[in-house]
Amino acid sequence: MDVEAGTPDAWSDVTPDAARRLVIAAVEAFAERGYHATTTRDIAGRAGMSPAALYIHYKTKEELLYQISRVGHLRSVGLLEEAANGPGAPGERLAVAVRAFVSWHAERHTTARVVQYELGALAEDHYTEIVALRRKSERAVRSIIEDGVRTGEFDVPDVAGTALAILSLCIDVARWFNPDGRRTPDDVGVLYADLVGRMVGPRQPVA
Amino acid sequence: MDVEAGTPDAWSDVTPDAARRLVIAAVEAFAERGYHATTTRDIAGRAGMSPAALYIHYKTKEELLYQISRVGHLRSVGLLEEAANGPGAPGERLAVAVRAFVSWHAERHTTARVVQYELGALAEDHYTEIVALRRKSERAVRSIIEDGVRTGEFDVPDVAGTALAILSLCIDVARWFNPDGRRTPDDVGVLYADLVGRMVGPRQPVA
Repeated sequence: MDVEAGTPDAWSDVTPDAARRLVIAAVEAFAERGYHATTTRDIAGRAGMSPAALYIHYKTKEELLYQISRVGHLRSVGLLEEAANGPGAPGERLAVAVRAFVSWHAERHTTARVVQYELGALAEDHYTEIVALRRKSERAVRSIIEDGVRTGEFDVPDVAGTALAILSLCIDVARWFNPDGRRTPDDVGVLYADLVGRMVGPRQPVA
Repeated sequence: MDVEAGTPDAWSDVTPDAARRLVIAAVEAFAERGYHATTTRDIAGRAGMSPAALYIHYKTKEELLYQISRVGHLRSVGLLEEAANGPGAPGERLAVAVRAFVSWHAERHTTARVVQYELGALAEDHYTEIVALRRKSERAVRSIIEDGVRTGEFDVPDVAGTALAILSLCIDVARWFNPDGRRTPDDVGVLYADLVGRMVGPRQPVA
């Protein structure tokens, strides 16, 4: 199994330690077998705990998925808003946003896959909350694009569609990224920042 | 459940009719609950058949996944190679490829999700065969980009990375596409063909 979910900083906000161990075990189990094929017993076993001990921290499997999804989305929104509100021209801020967002999806590809592919398994109120976070991510990217259109640095006929495409391109890194491949997370981030810069930049007429 | 998998042309190559019904039922079940949480009994039930009747056509659940994955990948390779080998300048061929590939992933988003997210559940020999088809898809896109670089129509510093990014952007449409949303599959295809054209086109220096 990928060790990514076990890296020290990934779930540092989740306390106490037993709850954190359960989240890490749940990410691994959901990524390997899917949410519906995973039982709370599987998760407790992976974390070296009893089902009763799991129950102290999480009443249901869905609560664990919600925790994973919430932490993952908060991190994404944080990265994008930091870039959107940061210094520099729109082009620089968009490059910072793409590079950080791509690196996160490459480094945390196991977590990101669970976060992206199991949304439909969230309870309705949790789903509503996560959708609101996703809207914030979209708004952050859209605001950078709008700034660039306003200053004339960007030429973007469809701002909403382009923001969606940029986020989609970055999110899909989690699907194909291979930590044993020849590109590091930051290599992909740098490549994608350039490609996205071209997407929004003024279009040169073909000679 | 999405009706997409039930559209007449999606699985027309799968015969006899009972085998086709099983494939459609399997796509729906895998998309809803994941491959590992689905049993052959679930699939037979959805298709209105007995487990024994399923067994006549498919010995295992994995054989069904393989069938779905093979048909899906053959279709993708076909679309991309047709565009790569078609008439027109590289920019036109790339636009045709992106538009067709995106439309397929939007129209067949349920199938495409199963095809893309359950690769890890394929048996080793099947996985090897599917990976070879994926390489053909990559080669088709790369060949168009290389043609454009040769003619000077494109400016692409990293051909392999750009080909990967283009395919990734298009594939991820299957994750977010909503048939009740305001964009049709072809709307997305047209938008993406423009964005991809910008990715590979000569970059205009910022004024």
